[in-house]
Order: sequence, then structure tokens, then C-alpha cells
Amino acid sequence: MPESEAVLFANEAFYRAFADRDLSAMEALWSEAAPVSCIHPGWAPLFGRDDVLRSWAAIIGAPGAPDIACRGARARIYGDTAFVVCFERLGDDYLIATNVFVREDRLWRMVHHQSGPTAGDPGPEDRAPPAMN
Amino acid sequence: MPESEAVLFANEAFYRAFADRDLSAMEALWSEAAPVSCIHPGWAPLFGRDDVLRSWAAIIGAPGAPDIACRGARARIYGDTAFVVCFERLGDDYLIATNVFVREDRLWRMVHHQSGPTAGDPGPEDRAPPAMN
Repeated sequence: MPESEAVLFANEAFYRAFADRDLSAMEALWSEAAPVSCIHPGWAPLFGRDDVLRSWAAIIGAPGAPDIACRGARARIYGDTAFVVCFERLGDDYLIATNVFVREDRLWRMVHHQSGPTAGDPGPEDRAPPAMN
Repeated sequence: MPESEAVLFANEAFYRAFADRDLSAMEALWSEAAPVSCIHPGWAPLFGRDDVLRSWAAIIGAPGAPDIACRGARARIYGDTAFVVCFERLGDDYLIATNVFVREDRLWRMVHHQSGPTAGDPGPEDRAPPAMN
């Protein structure tokens, strides 16, 4: 698999864990070796695995947890670090996210996430679900 | 200079160029070799050096260009890639940003910027300007 597909696959796994409310999958995809951080839409930034995963447990476990999907993802790879810019579809609305990954033992694991509002959308060709290999 | 200071210095140079409305400095600090992208608060994402720098020319050149300063910056380095999470002070309000850098010929150059709203603030000790060496 080309590295860009591997990064997009890791990114898709993040949104799959979010949509499935699968906290174990969410814990597994965040790096344990590298420092992690997370900026949920409108929140203060969170630093460190404990605070980041506690926030995901709260979001995933909430009764009104959003139905989320990733659209229009683009990966950029710089050696063993990569980031993805993608839209997050929530109902009829979109957010825009930056997701940073590092390669550890051939797996791309998340080290940072920022999501915030956007006036844009992924365009007609990217509104459908991405093809999964 | 430790690498974390070098990354924070590059990050500070970005906000200095923004505050000084110095488009030449802004052009110089964005990578020319690597693909770049930028998500201004609430905007659709921009990809490629031309679109990104055109957006900065419009923002910096606008009569109401904001008086901006960086506060509470934290750098994370992963080999030749790094990112900074920092607050952006605009008047009495704050935004929160992720800025990604790559090391090119010993210089850290920006490849990605996302800024969005935050309920947080940098805390009392980080509201003052950072020390510059």
C-alpha cells in the first residue's frame, strides 16, 4: 500500500472509531510513544494522552454523540510524520480538521487533532463515502 | 539553540510577519519545496503555495487587518517535522492554532496552519509576550 493510502487509512480508522463509539479503537490509534495533543471544536487545547483520551471517552460516551464521517481527505507525508486535512460531516454541516500522524513500527498513529468551523465543503465528488481497500 | 527553541522561533516569526503586515517575511517562512496548506478561521482549506500566499496578501493588506500576537506556544518535534499549538491573541479574544513546520537546510519552514475558535486562554503566565533571544 502506498504510504499516502496508509495515512488515509489511519485517518479513516480514526473517524470509524469516532462514528462507532469504539473507545478501544480510539485508544489504540493514538500514539503511546510520542506526546499527543487535541483541540476539539471551540475547546481549549488538551495535552497528554490521559487528558486527550478522557475527552474522547466523554464525547463518544455522551448520549448525543454526533454521527460523523470524513470527506475530502488529503494526506501530506514528510518522512515519518504526516498530516491529513479533511472535512468532517456532521448531519448537513461540515467542520474542517488537521490530523497529525507519526509512523511507529510501520503503523501511522495519531499525535494531534484540531477541528474547527469551515465555510467550505468537500465538493460533490467527495461527499460520497471514500473507497476502502 | 535547542530545536524546540528553533521551532518556536520560526512560529514567532510567522506571527511577527502577520503583525507587521510583512508579506516578504511571510513568503520567506512558508516552504517552497514541500506542499503547503492553510485553514484560516472559518474558511475552506487552501492548498498550494500560490493560493496560500494570495490569502495572506489579502489578509495582511486589508485595512482592518487584525493586531495579532502568539501566546502559550508549545512545540512538538518528530524528526524533521514539528508542530506548534498556540493561542492567537486578537484584542481581548483568543483563537487556537496548529502550525506545522518542516526542517529544510537547518531552517524550520511552515507547511500548514489551522486556526479556529477556542473557549480557552493561555493562562496568566503566558499572556505576556514571550522572551525573544
